[in-house]
Amino acid sequence: MVETSSVAKDFPYFESLPNSLFQDNRARFIKNVKAKLGESLAPNGVALFKGYTEILKYNSDCPYPFVQEGNFYYLFGVNLPDCYGIIDFKNEEATLFIPKLENIYKIWMTVPTVEFCEKRFDIKTRYIEDLPSYLAEKSPEKIYINSGINTDSGVANLLPEEKHYLGYGLDKDSIYNILADTRVYKSEAEIDALRWATVITVEGHVQFMRKCKPGMRESQIETLFKSYCEYNYYCDRISPYIAICGCGNGAATLHYNDNDKILKDGETILCDLAHAVHHYTSDITSSFPVNGKFTQKQREIYEIVLKASREVQSIMKPGASWVDMHLLAERIILTGLRDLGLVSGDIEEMIEGRVGYIFMPHGLGHLIGVEVHEVGGYLEGITPERRQGPGLKNLRTARVLDNGITITVEPGLYFRDFLLDGEFGDDLKIDIKYLNREKIREYQQEISGVRIEDVVLVTQDGIENFSSGLPRTVEEIEACMRGEEWRK
Amino acid sequence: MVETSSVAKDFPYFESLPNSLFQDNRARFIKNVKAKLGESLAPNGVALFKGYTEILKYNSDCPYPFVQEGNFYYLFGVNLPDCYGIIDFKNEEATLFIPKLENIYKIWMTVPTVEFCEKRFDIKTRYIEDLPSYLAEKSPEKIYINSGINTDSGVANLLPEEKHYLGYGLDKDSIYNILADTRVYKSEAEIDALRWATVITVEGHVQFMRKCKPGMRESQIETLFKSYCEYNYYCDRISPYIAICGCGNGAATLHYNDNDKILKDGETILCDLAHAVHHYTSDITSSFPVNGKFTQKQREIYEIVLKASREVQSIMKPGASWVDMHLLAERIILTGLRDLGLVSGDIEEMIEGRVGYIFMPHGLGHLIGVEVHEVGGYLEGITPERRQGPGLKNLRTARVLDNGITITVEPGLYFRDFLLDGEFGDDLKIDIKYLNREKIREYQQEISGVRIEDVVLVTQDGIENFSSGLPRTVEEIEACMRGEEWRK
Repeated sequence: MVETSSVAKDFPYFESLPNSLFQDNRARFIKNVKAKLGESLAPNGVALFKGYTEILKYNSDCPYPFVQEGNFYYLFGVNLPDCYGIIDFKNEEATLFIPKLENIYKIWMTVPTVEFCEKRFDIKTRYIEDLPSYLAEKSPEKIYINSGINTDSGVANLLPEEKHYLGYGLDKDSIYNILADTRVYKSEAEIDALRWATVITVEGHVQFMRKCKPGMRESQIETLFKSYCEYNYYCDRISPYIAICGCGNGAATLHYNDNDKILKDGETILCDLAHAVHHYTSDITSSFPVNGKFTQKQREIYEIVLKASREVQSIMKPGASWVDMHLLAERIILTGLRDLGLVSGDIEEMIEGRVGYIFMPHGLGHLIGVEVHEVGGYLEGITPERRQGPGLKNLRTARVLDNGITITVEPGLYFRDFLLDGEFGDDLKIDIKYLNREKIREYQQEISGVRIEDVVLVTQDGIENFSSGLPRTVEEIEACMRGEEWRK
Repeated sequence: MVETSSVAKDFPYFESLPNSLFQDNRARFIKNVKAKLGESLAPNGVALFKGYTEILKYNSDCPYPFVQEGNFYYLFGVNLPDCYGIIDFKNEEATLFIPKLENIYKIWMTVPTVEFCEKRFDIKTRYIEDLPSYLAEKSPEKIYINSGINTDSGVANLLPEEKHYLGYGLDKDSIYNILADTRVYKSEAEIDALRWATVITVEGHVQFMRKCKPGMRESQIETLFKSYCEYNYYCDRISPYIAICGCGNGAATLHYNDNDKILKDGETILCDLAHAVHHYTSDITSSFPVNGKFTQKQREIYEIVLKASREVQSIMKPGASWVDMHLLAERIILTGLRDLGLVSGDIEEMIEGRVGYIFMPHGLGHLIGVEVHEVGGYLEGITPERRQGPGLKNLRTARVLDNGITITVEPGLYFRDFLLDGEFGDDLKIDIKYLNREKIREYQQEISGVRIEDVVLVTQDGIENFSSGLPRTVEEIEACMRGEEWRK
C-alpha cells in the first residue's frame, strides 16, 4: 500500500493539470481533423466551441457547483463559465474568449481578466465582445461547430449562439465524431492524471473498508470516501458521479444512490464511488461484507465475479473485441453459477438465450476519461455498431480494444427478484427454465449483488490495471478490514 | 457547547422531516388563499404544481444530485423527480402524482410506487397517467398555476406541461405571491428544523475553528465542515449554497468560492457555510484569525462588526423595519471606522451619501427557510417596495419584521481596493472624500473582510438567535481555537 501521507505529498496536481496536457489534446484533435477531412477541410477553417454556463437550482439564485462541458474542458482546460473557444486549423492556434464583467461583479466573485487567463491557461485570450471582429479579420471559409448527440444520454450538446457565426459558411457535421474519437485515445499526460485519480480512489476505498462496521449508515461510507479524497486532494466540489453505497438488497440496484440504510451484520455492501483529478476521473467498485468476514455463500458468489474480472483482464489487449470480453464474463459467471447449482443447462445455449443478462444486466464496462462515461463508445463510420439483444445492447461500446484506450472492467452478479421471475417487460423474452429459483433464494439471503470494477489502460501487449492497489481476494479484503497489511 | 455525540444521538430527522410539517404548510397555504382571494376563488378550484426534474451535467448521462424545487418541497415534502401535485381548495385535500416507470428501471434505481409514496409521505398518490382522468372527474372551474419570478435570481419557475391543464379555466396570477408569503411565516415544526440546521452548522464551524492552522488550504476548511455535518447528520448530497472560505483578500469577495489558497500566518479567514436539514437550511458566517490570535487591528475591525450585529439584534422585533436595521448597521460601522480614523466626517451625511456601501456592499440579511435566500422578499401588494440607492437596493427584502419570520443578520466590513478607489462603474456615484485611504491601507494589510452572520427567528417581543452557540467575541474565538471551553 502506498502510504497516504506520501501520496498526498507527491501529488502533482493540486492546482490544476498542466496546460501542456490540453495543448497536446488540441494538437491531436487538429491532426485527426486534418487526417480525416483531408482536402475537404476549408483552407482557412476554424472550429468554434461553447463552454458551459452556470446552472441554477430551479429558479433560485443558488447555482450547482460549476462543471465545465467535457469537450470544452478537454480542448482548453478552462473551468470558467460562459466562455467560447476557437481552434484555427490553418495556423493551429487556439484562442479563448471570456466574458467581460463589469467592476461591480468583483464585489461578489473572482473576476477573470484576459491577462489572468493568458498566464493561467497559457492560451491567447480575448473578451467575447471581440469575437465578431476576430472572426471578421480571420474571415474563415467555414466555421466548424461541435454538434452531436451523447450516445449514453441521447442528449445534444450546447451549441454556440447563432449570432456568433451568422454570415459564415457552416459545418455542423464533421468534427464531433473526430473529437470524440480523439478523446478515446489517451496521451501520457492524460494517463498520468487517470492513474492518480485511481490511486486516490483506491486510498479512499481502503479508508471506508477499514472503518466499515454494522450499525453505520450507507451515507457514512460515502462521506468517509469523499472527505478523505477532498481533504487530501481537493480537485472539484462535485463527485464525478453520485456515490453508490448499497448494502443488502441495495447492492443489486445498479445505480442505487439512496444511501440511507443502516448496515446490518451479515450483509454485504457494494460501493461504487470515485474521485476525479480535475475532470479526469476514476470509477471503482468494491464489494465486501460489512462485518469484515465473508460467509461461505458470500465467498462463493464473490469469487465467481473475481474470476470473471481476472480472466477478462488476462486476455485484454489490442485487437480484442469488447463484445467478446463481455460474453467471456457472462460465460464465467454462468459457469460459476452452474457449478454451485444455481443454474442448470448448457452454457452456450444460455448465452445465446441471453440468460446472462438476468445476472448481469449491464455492460462489462465503459470508456473513461474526462467523463466517467467517456464519449466515443459508438461513432458512425468509426466504431462497430451497437449490438442487439439484452446485455449486448447495454454495452456502452462495441469497440475493438486498442493501445491507449482507458476502460472500466466491471463484471457483476446480482439477484433481483423481478428479473429472476422473468418479469422483464413486454419487449424482452428470456427463458428462465435454466434457473434453480430455490437454490438462488438460499444465496440471495446472504448476498444480493457483487460488482468488481477496475480502471485499466490498454497497452501494446495487454493492460495496466490502475486500481491494482485494492484488496480484491477474499483473504486480502478480510485482512484489510482487520486493519492488517494485505499485500503479499 | 452541546456535546457532539449527544447532538447526533438526539437528532430527530435522520430520515426526513415529519409529514405533518408539510400537511401544516399546505393548510396554511390553503387558509391564506381563501383569505386573500375570498369570493373570487373558484368554488371548485385546484392548484397544480410541477416538481423538478433531474438535471444532467451538460449532455452527459451523469446528473447533478437531485434537488426538489422549493415550492413543491414546501407543500408536498417529496424529494423525487418528475412529480406533479394538486391541492384541491374545496375539500382541502392534496394529491401527489408520480411517474410510472417500467419494471426495467428497477435494474438501475429504486422505483417509487403509489403504495410506497402513500405510506412514506402520508398523502394520496396516483400515477401521472391518471392526472387527466382525475381532473376530468373533478372538473375544476379553474386551475391555479404557480407562475412567478424569483426576486433574487429574476428567473421564472418551471410550469406544468400545458397538456395537463389544457381545456380548463386557468389562473396564473393569483397564487404565487400568496404561497411565497406563506413560506415567510414559519410554523413551530419549521422553526424546529431550522433550529436543528443551525445547531448542526454551529457544531461544524467549531470543528474547523479548532482544526484551523496556517498551511492548510481553504478547501480543507470546507471539507472539515461538510464531512462533519454529513457524517453525523446526512440530509442531502448538495450543500444549500457553495461554501465560502476566503482567507486574506478572499475574505472581501462576498461570494468567493475558489477556496484554493493556502492559509497564511497572520491572515484572517471568512467562512460562510451551512448545513441544511432536508431543505430547511442554516446560513452562518464566522470570521477569525487563521493562527487563532487576533492582532490589535484585526480585533478593532472585528469588534466593529460584532457591535453592529449585537445592536441590531438587540432591537429587532415585530414592527421594526429591515431597512432601518440595515441603516443602523451602517451607522455603527461608519462610526467605528471614524473612531479609528479610517473615515472622517459627519456620519449621517455619509449614510445619506451611501458611503456605507463601500464597506458593506450587500444587504444586512435575507429571509431563510426552505431555501437559503427564501422567497417572499418583495411581493407586489404585500411587502414594501425595493428601495433605491447603493446598498439599499441590494437588500433582499424591505419587510417590516413580524413574529414567525426567520432572517439572517449579517453585517460585514470589507476593504476592496476598487471600491475604496471609487471605481464603482458609470451608474454609481459615491463621494470618497470621507475615506482616509492611507489609514485604511494600514488596516487592510492585516484584515480584508469580516462578516458575522446569524440566523434568527423574530418572536413576539424580540428574537431568538439560533446560532448563539458560536464563539463570537474575540476572547471566545481565541479560547475555542485553543481548544478550551469558551462559554461563560
